[in-house]
Amino acid sequence: MHTVPHLIAVVAAGLLLAVRAQQDPPRLSCQPGDPQPPSRVNTTERVNALRGLMQSLNIAAYIVLTNDDHQSEYVADYDERRRFISGFSGSSGWAVVTKNESALWTDSRYFLQADQQLDCDWKLMRDRNAGVPMMEQWLIDNLKAGDVVSADQKTVPESQWQTWLKAFEPQGIALQVRTNSNLVDQVWGLDRPPYPSTPAQVLDETLYAGETWRQKVARVAAQVGASGGQATVVAALDEVAWLLNLRGADVPFTPVIRAYLTLELRPAAQVTLYVANSKLTPAVRTHLAEGQADGVVIKDYEQIWDDLTALGIRVTNVTLPSRFSYSLGVSHAVYERFPSEKVIEIPAPVSVMKDIKNAVEAAGMRNANLRDSAALVKFLAKLEAGVLAGESWDEMRAVAEVAAIRAAMPLSQGPCFESISASGVNSALPHYEPTATTNSPVNASAVYTLDSGGHYFDGSTDVTRTVYFGTPLPIHVEVYTRLLSGCITLASAVFPLGTTLSGLDILARGDLYKGGFDFGHGITHGIGHFLAVHEAFNTTFNENFFGSQEPGFYVDDQWGMRLENIVTVERKNFTGPYAVNKTFLQFDMVTLVPYEVKLIDPGLLTAKQIDWLNSYHARVASELSPLIQDDPVALLWMQERTRPLNSI
Amino acid sequence: MHTVPHLIAVVAAGLLLAVRAQQDPPRLSCQPGDPQPPSRVNTTERVNALRGLMQSLNIAAYIVLTNDDHQSEYVADYDERRRFISGFSGSSGWAVVTKNESALWTDSRYFLQADQQLDCDWKLMRDRNAGVPMMEQWLIDNLKAGDVVSADQKTVPESQWQTWLKAFEPQGIALQVRTNSNLVDQVWGLDRPPYPSTPAQVLDETLYAGETWRQKVARVAAQVGASGGQATVVAALDEVAWLLNLRGADVPFTPVIRAYLTLELRPAAQVTLYVANSKLTPAVRTHLAEGQADGVVIKDYEQIWDDLTALGIRVTNVTLPSRFSYSLGVSHAVYERFPSEKVIEIPAPVSVMKDIKNAVEAAGMRNANLRDSAALVKFLAKLEAGVLAGESWDEMRAVAEVAAIRAAMPLSQGPCFESISASGVNSALPHYEPTATTNSPVNASAVYTLDSGGHYFDGSTDVTRTVYFGTPLPIHVEVYTRLLSGCITLASAVFPLGTTLSGLDILARGDLYKGGFDFGHGITHGIGHFLAVHEAFNTTFNENFFGSQEPGFYVDDQWGMRLENIVTVERKNFTGPYAVNKTFLQFDMVTLVPYEVKLIDPGLLTAKQIDWLNSYHARVASELSPLIQDDPVALLWMQERTRPLNSI
Repeated sequence: MHTVPHLIAVVAAGLLLAVRAQQDPPRLSCQPGDPQPPSRVNTTERVNALRGLMQSLNIAAYIVLTNDDHQSEYVADYDERRRFISGFSGSSGWAVVTKNESALWTDSRYFLQADQQLDCDWKLMRDRNAGVPMMEQWLIDNLKAGDVVSADQKTVPESQWQTWLKAFEPQGIALQVRTNSNLVDQVWGLDRPPYPSTPAQVLDETLYAGETWRQKVARVAAQVGASGGQATVVAALDEVAWLLNLRGADVPFTPVIRAYLTLELRPAAQVTLYVANSKLTPAVRTHLAEGQADGVVIKDYEQIWDDLTALGIRVTNVTLPSRFSYSLGVSHAVYERFPSEKVIEIPAPVSVMKDIKNAVEAAGMRNANLRDSAALVKFLAKLEAGVLAGESWDEMRAVAEVAAIRAAMPLSQGPCFESISASGVNSALPHYEPTATTNSPVNASAVYTLDSGGHYFDGSTDVTRTVYFGTPLPIHVEVYTRLLSGCITLASAVFPLGTTLSGLDILARGDLYKGGFDFGHGITHGIGHFLAVHEAFNTTFNENFFGSQEPGFYVDDQWGMRLENIVTVERKNFTGPYAVNKTFLQFDMVTLVPYEVKLIDPGLLTAKQIDWLNSYHARVASELSPLIQDDPVALLWMQERTRPLNSI
Repeated sequence: MHTVPHLIAVVAAGLLLAVRAQQDPPRLSCQPGDPQPPSRVNTTERVNALRGLMQSLNIAAYIVLTNDDHQSEYVADYDERRRFISGFSGSSGWAVVTKNESALWTDSRYFLQADQQLDCDWKLMRDRNAGVPMMEQWLIDNLKAGDVVSADQKTVPESQWQTWLKAFEPQGIALQVRTNSNLVDQVWGLDRPPYPSTPAQVLDETLYAGETWRQKVARVAAQVGASGGQATVVAALDEVAWLLNLRGADVPFTPVIRAYLTLELRPAAQVTLYVANSKLTPAVRTHLAEGQADGVVIKDYEQIWDDLTALGIRVTNVTLPSRFSYSLGVSHAVYERFPSEKVIEIPAPVSVMKDIKNAVEAAGMRNANLRDSAALVKFLAKLEAGVLAGESWDEMRAVAEVAAIRAAMPLSQGPCFESISASGVNSALPHYEPTATTNSPVNASAVYTLDSGGHYFDGSTDVTRTVYFGTPLPIHVEVYTRLLSGCITLASAVFPLGTTLSGLDILARGDLYKGGFDFGHGITHGIGHFLAVHEAFNTTFNENFFGSQEPGFYVDDQWGMRLENIVTVERKNFTGPYAVNKTFLQFDMVTLVPYEVKLIDPGLLTAKQIDWLNSYHARVASELSPLIQDDPVALLWMQERTRPLNSI
């Protein structure tokens, strides 16, 4: 599963002036007397309440982000403030409320949905559409010098805060913190969902984590010290979870608990965990050696703020996580607790470290992905048999069935992201997630793409296959083969340590380019070990990196295809007398799911690529067979797809 | 011909502390009574004279760079100050003189030569060897707070000056300009060679340049204006030459005249050229419309400095060239004439523009490279016939003969760089240039690499072929084929506008990596149109870019191979209904010289690569034949090498 660039990523100050002036397209069903879409939410009362608070604090514009206080990719219902204030429930968007206006920015995935959900008082800002100003520019156009813009500083990454400052300050518009509490929370009444209270669980350090939390803390401490810091703050939830070998269920799809953590190096290394009491079981307390001299000190979640203030006074230097890959870095709220001259910004040591899996994690990732591949093969075989037998299948049924098959696998812990289950025209949208209103049949007359993954105690998975149950058009075969060719070329690469991810991009896209094709998303994301499906990754490849390789192609309003495997990086040794004295690396496939033979044109592949494919399929057959012996349909389906292709 | 990273490039402030402490290896023949190498230069007197001047100016250390005042790649004898003060004549090196020490930094190409040429008072600093401090670190170790370091600010790029400032200032060491004149010049006596007085010549604007200087000036003026400048300074000699359609012979290998140029936008665009009177013929004065209202104002070369000071007062903003690819940007001397708040640093507009050849330049580049390919084919055929007939050939004879054959070609204007003519063990050095003492036989028992190129009125060339007249070892065939495979994979690429040069690097190296091989230089440099062989280039590919593609492989102390073609970039159009709405580009070969069949293992190439090779060779035969009809040996040699290889 790939990501679109986060809104935050594209708001570079230099782009602010790029687009302006044109008229926004009109809102849906917003003429007098129009029937209202059923999903539309009337936000008049809550927005007016927010305006009242803004007025009392002399705030001219209030920005409501999607982020929670930890800049998580998925947020708990409790933190769905942007959804509450605007009515829009998509995963990406910024809401802005001024004295007289309210506006929501979102990306093209959500234009229709937002139009249906926002009431007619909201302006819908279709991000990147011609004539649509960026949020900062719109505020500049709608405010005057001396006005104050504000937001909840806990939900704003420091890098984002600085970008806003650069945009607003030259216009005389102030960006200010006017209160420590979130204004939307004050408006939100009794119907606000409570924060989850599911307790944390300990990830077995021997079976799954492969390194004790003390060892991890020691490595982080060394890194912080080497960077000149006397302390650091861990605010990203997957970083806290990885560091302490804890897992939880506080946000959807990512097994984390809501917590902050500080690590102070002197006089002795001291970890303090700020977490709600409800998360703490006796097992967790024992695991963390609470009360012992070298154990973790546990404090209430809310205590972090006073303690950070004290820490800011106590230390000479603190390292704070900067923005790094998918990791957005600490919030402005954390940042401002420290005098800026004491702050050393570095990529979070935990993020840098967890990008490289240890031997136990790596073995777990391979095993989890093998079981997950077996689950997907079972599902695809069942789906094909069902469709061809005339059963009624649709996108949402597919999601439910594949989840059920995964759930039956050992160590399963549920899906690791919202499945992309896209039939026909829906597959043209790379991020399509079926809803009750869009749910479409899966049948023999349409391309079908399933991008899904699961968590297991020993690892996480993410895999995409495109299938076609009818007779494909030549263009389907050409595109599928070029995608596969890109997968194989990339998978076959040998490269020296230090090679950047972007340096291999051409290998995945090169054969698409030769057909005049391309696609608008990245090829690779890191993946966590029973953690975030999109995990921050280093810019160069390292041994035991685990991540995706996923080229795609999408024809607007028609169809799309994507092929995705999880791969890992391993050493490639050369012993010949002329080999240079360098560390070479190569990929090894972790996902083991067959490709669709009838969508492959062997004439578009080289003999070496066909060798690679035959070898991959032989391995799939060999490793998967033991796991699907109980399922004759799946076994036959797999055998049909893993026979060697004749070399050209 | 490729370059090594310029010394300036590798002195990043962060690296300063990387290496220290170990003992330098001892100097050659520097024990009492040792016989001195014949090329050794006694510099005692001149260094002492320099120290006298330093003392009078309170300078603790004086840095002497290789650069001339215009940061040219090749410098006139007149500007060989580092050679004069140290005795070392290599193309790359920094000399530093302190009160009691003198030291010279150079790279591995020149370790032996420098050891032979430097007298025993000089420390030889073998750049990047273990234990060898970088120049800045050595000065920090050898000076004390309050000491003053100086250098001729005209020879120091502003970016370099800033790097030094960052290194020295925290140590309390001052980097200061203490005089406007170069101290080495004051020491240098009557034996200093005069600056060349060859007149400039006009490059025919219709036949060769393809754009009038007025049109070019208008484009530069627009760019400067768009960047917020009211004026700019052109200091790089190839930029002045390109802008005014003038050529000259002031520095070796690059057909330029020594001149500065200013362009002021208001009240009307005004170009002023600062150049010695000796360069100006009536034709040049007429070409520049001297004396006309819209003509170029011509002033004496030395007048630039006072005029820059006046310009610095007159304008509100000036754009000055920043460092950009091979273009090192303006000197500190130019930079300091302007109050820093008035300076807008941008890549030199001329460099950005000349990276994209116009239609006339592009056609000329193709024609010049075609004639040059014919010359090289004639030479290689003659060399092979001669060697196999038992004639006595050596590296220097090869250089002379290929130059003579090029000189006989229409529009020839001499070689465009010092030829790399390397036999056997010498070919292991990527930058080897034969000298009287190293000159080695070219025969049937050694790999031979020739990297050479010529200037023509209509373009410049640069081509490398490795040959072997005996029976090659399997490793020779493997490496040659992997190099060729890289050339073909890169040459066959299709890529969208916006693709970076580094983004295609893996295509040239990928097949070497698969054998455990790699090499330590870049793959591509820009090439000028009858200008610098190493021309600054933009980071992304554009239509009508001309540059090299040159993978290599070098086995220390044994042998090396390199294959280099000049290529250009052209549009690749797709018309199919599914093609994306993007501009795609591809390469077209400009160098047309056959590859060596007996060094190719077809089993290491794909069927498509063999198709590419056959098609390239068919084109070589078709386009070259008319140009070598007068040379039956060459014709036969070419025919033998351009027959189709059987596909596997």
